[in-house]
Amino acid sequence: MLLLIPGPVTTRPEVRAALAQDIAPWDNDFRAVYAALRERLSAIGGAREGLHAALPLQGSGHFAVEAAVRSFVPARGKLLLPMTGAYAERMDRLAREAGRVVVPLAVAEEGPVEPAAVFAALAADPDISHVGLVYSETGSGVVHDACAIGEAVRRAGRRMLLDAVSGFGALPLDLSAQPEIDAAVFTPNKCLESVPGLAVVLARTDRLETGLAGSWCFDLADIYAHAERVGWGSFRFTPPAQVIAALIVALDLFDAEGGRLARLARYEANTATLYDGVLRLGLTPCLPRDVQGPVVMNVHAPADPAWDLQGFVDLLKSRGFVISNFYTTPEPSFRVGCIGAITPSDMARFVDAMDGALRGLGVRHRAGGRASA
Amino acid sequence: MLLLIPGPVTTRPEVRAALAQDIAPWDNDFRAVYAALRERLSAIGGAREGLHAALPLQGSGHFAVEAAVRSFVPARGKLLLPMTGAYAERMDRLAREAGRVVVPLAVAEEGPVEPAAVFAALAADPDISHVGLVYSETGSGVVHDACAIGEAVRRAGRRMLLDAVSGFGALPLDLSAQPEIDAAVFTPNKCLESVPGLAVVLARTDRLETGLAGSWCFDLADIYAHAERVGWGSFRFTPPAQVIAALIVALDLFDAEGGRLARLARYEANTATLYDGVLRLGLTPCLPRDVQGPVVMNVHAPADPAWDLQGFVDLLKSRGFVISNFYTTPEPSFRVGCIGAITPSDMARFVDAMDGALRGLGVRHRAGGRASA
Repeated sequence: MLLLIPGPVTTRPEVRAALAQDIAPWDNDFRAVYAALRERLSAIGGAREGLHAALPLQGSGHFAVEAAVRSFVPARGKLLLPMTGAYAERMDRLAREAGRVVVPLAVAEEGPVEPAAVFAALAADPDISHVGLVYSETGSGVVHDACAIGEAVRRAGRRMLLDAVSGFGALPLDLSAQPEIDAAVFTPNKCLESVPGLAVVLARTDRLETGLAGSWCFDLADIYAHAERVGWGSFRFTPPAQVIAALIVALDLFDAEGGRLARLARYEANTATLYDGVLRLGLTPCLPRDVQGPVVMNVHAPADPAWDLQGFVDLLKSRGFVISNFYTTPEPSFRVGCIGAITPSDMARFVDAMDGALRGLGVRHRAGGRASA
Repeated sequence: MLLLIPGPVTTRPEVRAALAQDIAPWDNDFRAVYAALRERLSAIGGAREGLHAALPLQGSGHFAVEAAVRSFVPARGKLLLPMTGAYAERMDRLAREAGRVVVPLAVAEEGPVEPAAVFAALAADPDISHVGLVYSETGSGVVHDACAIGEAVRRAGRRMLLDAVSGFGALPLDLSAQPEIDAAVFTPNKCLESVPGLAVVLARTDRLETGLAGSWCFDLADIYAHAERVGWGSFRFTPPAQVIAALIVALDLFDAEGGRLARLARYEANTATLYDGVLRLGLTPCLPRDVQGPVVMNVHAPADPAWDLQGFVDLLKSRGFVISNFYTTPEPSFRVGCIGAITPSDMARFVDAMDGALRGLGVRHRAGGRASA
């Protein structure tokens, strides 16, 4: 069974095997494991030693987004949020419920955010301290230009929080060249191809101050203090130790594959195979090819009364593929993750499976490239 | 290697084996797994259908304690906290940083909290809405009388938050008989003998109101709404799916052993073996036998210049046992977990290992029952 949901992703058997052990997370051996892991994650994000730190947090990516907002945006501070789709809406809610003021910036969901629009919005409101950007928006499939938008933020003298949850490890990120980024958030169960249970914030440590988060659990300054404290150097609270052991193996496989560029190339090849296949079946991707990102593809629901998302999902599952049984686009669609331990030949098999599932539902499409009834 | 830290605990191989699989947490099959898991956890805590719900939360026990405080104690509301030890201090900090007012109640750490003292403190301050109690205090090893204290809370017309993290599954808990409990918090990596990554709140659902938590991630009302929503019925955010698969196997083993009473009996036997062994070696438990709980035992550090906690830990590890290399009592001590997939015969071997480790350090004690130099 291959997972083509946009995370948690399909993992390699070596990653799963690493889960099956008892681990004492406060043992001195584990402290060294933790420190080494933080270094490796920092390096992937281009973090600069002495300026940034990788701060692991138990839980899901949303937890780390809330922690980043709380730890960097002052209470009642203002956050500009380009409303790129479903995950921008989630950052909006996370920030508002944490007592921060969100200034929404309306943008078109089917294309990249314009840096000039961000700059203009910042110029119009000097009280905005931060911009929150979803790097790869699952709700649309668009990858936004974090570099160009970051440059606009920098020129405006403001700071940026980057939700890199779904793209970290494949999309480019060089924190050393983007000093405006206070926090880049990710989870290892996306492009790093490990299992869920942990999130990470790559944080500007010089801008952290203990006690400002309004939540001890989500106070990145305190997490950092424990991570660096001589004689402790570990998590504050019980970590998902098995999940961490799996991540270490996943990083070994990441390195063996050739790192970020090799991974991105594989995901782009997965996406191209899927995009071609979707067109060949007579279906319509939600995005034009030139703005389709390599993480998740949303495809318009066929305009056929026989279409039934749950039925489609069930038929695909009987053929060995799991996709989501819900969608996060404004209009009905289905979505396919292009990330995880899968290859273009898996994607080609998946296109065949879609063909069979559509036939099973009785949805008119071009079966095997030929029009069907 | 056996873990005798007070959690994460030693697990059975069947539990660890269940981790090694890919899982799609939004698949319909998993929604049923999630619902069934919540039912089983509710039953262990004596929850009443329609009144309580088991609400799983990603992360550690502290996260769930913060979620319980935020979701039930009003913002700027008052929480009475018997200061039983290190974990009461943690609840204190979690509550204060979340903007709640903590009223500390000084109590002796080496014995159970007096219900009358709680009642008097509540009578003296009608603004206190809740009492927070650590059921089994890791900092001391004392198990407090949650029933008798709950009764005092009930008589005073107030509510209780029970931190049952380290004792749930072994210590008695019958929520149906304790209507004053708004939330009982636990993690499955203690007496349920599963792995870390998840926490659970057994919550009074009639007292939950969305949006009061001041944190979307920690809003139990919203977690409940998603758990019960028709067509969703699952986690809101990506769960540690493998950790959940392990927990289900751990619950099967819990049932097979005979449930809570059988588990408590085994832990009490572990504790008795350890207590006797500690005395036989000439060491001194921090607690008298009649208040020593069955979860964790703190033992006074030997008053010998050769004593060295890290050295002791390292020597025990070379003999196959992991204990903590720090302590959470006011005075120097070492601590031994009595919970997890271990038996009295493991404990007897551990006492022998302590004997060997003390000899290795050159600490004067009664080696094998005989005084050594």
